[in-house]
Amino acid sequence: MKEFPGCFPRIMGHEAFGVVESVGEDVEELKEGDSVVPIFLSDCMDCVDCKSKKSNLCSKFPFEISPLMHRDDTSRFTTAEGETLHHFLYISSFSEYTVVDVVNVTKVDPEIPPNRACLLSCGISTGIGAAWKKASVEPGSTVVIFGLGAIGLAVAEGARLCGATRIIGVDINSDKFEIGKQFGVTEFVNSRSCGDKPVSQVIIEMTNGGADYCFECVGVGTLVQEAFACCRKGWGKTIVLGVDKPESQLNFNSLEVLMSGKTLTGALFGGLKPKSDVPILVKRYLDKELQLDKFVTHEVSFEDINKAFDLLLQGKSLRCVIWMDK
Amino acid sequence: MKEFPGCFPRIMGHEAFGVVESVGEDVEELKEGDSVVPIFLSDCMDCVDCKSKKSNLCSKFPFEISPLMHRDDTSRFTTAEGETLHHFLYISSFSEYTVVDVVNVTKVDPEIPPNRACLLSCGISTGIGAAWKKASVEPGSTVVIFGLGAIGLAVAEGARLCGATRIIGVDINSDKFEIGKQFGVTEFVNSRSCGDKPVSQVIIEMTNGGADYCFECVGVGTLVQEAFACCRKGWGKTIVLGVDKPESQLNFNSLEVLMSGKTLTGALFGGLKPKSDVPILVKRYLDKELQLDKFVTHEVSFEDINKAFDLLLQGKSLRCVIWMDK
Repeated sequence: MKEFPGCFPRIMGHEAFGVVESVGEDVEELKEGDSVVPIFLSDCMDCVDCKSKKSNLCSKFPFEISPLMHRDDTSRFTTAEGETLHHFLYISSFSEYTVVDVVNVTKVDPEIPPNRACLLSCGISTGIGAAWKKASVEPGSTVVIFGLGAIGLAVAEGARLCGATRIIGVDINSDKFEIGKQFGVTEFVNSRSCGDKPVSQVIIEMTNGGADYCFECVGVGTLVQEAFACCRKGWGKTIVLGVDKPESQLNFNSLEVLMSGKTLTGALFGGLKPKSDVPILVKRYLDKELQLDKFVTHEVSFEDINKAFDLLLQGKSLRCVIWMDK
Repeated sequence: MKEFPGCFPRIMGHEAFGVVESVGEDVEELKEGDSVVPIFLSDCMDCVDCKSKKSNLCSKFPFEISPLMHRDDTSRFTTAEGETLHHFLYISSFSEYTVVDVVNVTKVDPEIPPNRACLLSCGISTGIGAAWKKASVEPGSTVVIFGLGAIGLAVAEGARLCGATRIIGVDINSDKFEIGKQFGVTEFVNSRSCGDKPVSQVIIEMTNGGADYCFECVGVGTLVQEAFACCRKGWGKTIVLGVDKPESQLNFNSLEVLMSGKTLTGALFGGLKPKSDVPILVKRYLDKELQLDKFVTHEVSFEDINKAFDLLLQGKSLRCVIWMDK
């Protein structure tokens, strides 16, 4: 993967909702006025991956941490002084207007309010998708979620929708249990209060042998290993969602992988296919099955965007919606 | 897992066929004269794992490298001098008579000849099962097999039966390609003839991005990593079958696991459930779909058992059947 560290000036922001202002000359999928959710993961609907139900990793426009447009490696933005202004994850949504490739835009039912639709642009979809599409959580199952941030809570919401019976949250902040209950979390383990035991051992004891599905939503290699350790032999699945440092390694005992029959996998965007799966989530929200409202703890106008960052750093917000036109 | 290194004296042998000589007082599943395949992996048909289609790892009689019977941790054998003679993997088949728990015995159609049925007792079933049950190889897919010993060849046979189009064998001995062709191998890579490239890179180029399924059948951690590296993004699965040293670690880049969407898993006995799946393999052999004959390259009488070991060490045999009564 190419990397472009610290490429500035740049328009940040990648979780958003928007209305199409105009389309390029060959674009037939969208028209002016359409409600859309921009999504960093491409969906060209044409390559072998996009045509397959088994993959959400477009081959024609593969995901890279690029500061430019996919097709021609150029930018559509310039500063007032004429300097190149870079893109961010193909979206650049901290802006009143942006330019996004059609492969990164999903048309959605305009009935969904903007401050709910934008949640489906990345993190919340990722968590829900991980439970629904990547893990295929079965009714009656036991799920463990490492890290009850917004993505972990979205995993809980996805697992709840799939009919999981026990949803065990693991976090270093016990306040997360009350928040988690709103999204289906049924039990809680503070990983700093496990005494001499590794948290995996506590989970194994609680679940009489391990959980059916474990989700790592923090981005710490050792937690992935703990998750794998406490997923159940025979059919336990561990799903990696947390983004760790680029050099971070995961270590597993070879014989344990062989003999336990467990599965390790990971998912970008929770394994969801942007153009076909996100509209299903929109429908489930409109049908009052999927809870999105409670993820929005704050809303601010664009001029107060730094308040949103402060809330995030203070751990006070799940999602703070930033309105461009308020 | 408990370990019992070097526990002697002991009756070795765990791949076998037999006829029931007598049964214990509470055994209803089998009777004198039944044709049976003893299998090291238990199937009690009663615990949550044995009742589930998703697991083959019996919870009531879990697999351990034990030198004794499961239920009472005693031996059924003594030497002429009255010393305890230990069991091996619950089977101890290098013997005219043995004592095996009913959970380690699968009744089979007596139509199958003994020198074919015994192949289904461990290694050949493991390879076939890994392709069929653990990986669920789909028709038209591309499979890579690291190590074309008997288990790797059995993976090829399983993948062939599942309808795989390309079956790429990887080995350090190029003679294995001709042998492999008999079991469906369509292409071959000598991993010592890849020049400066890692074998995974060669496979990625051959397959235009990676294989659908990769099987590690050697028992070398770095090969598992190569297998994972060359299974395809989005839906690629790597299945660990090779038994490495107990301390051997597998290392994966955390971001690669997250972003590639690939899956890593492993299987004892190929994920097969002994009592329900092995009879299906027997039927497929009798229906002339499953090729077992070619796995038997040699047959010797019990008094020549050391010839069988010599053939194995010289790499001349796939499976050498040892007859107790010839």
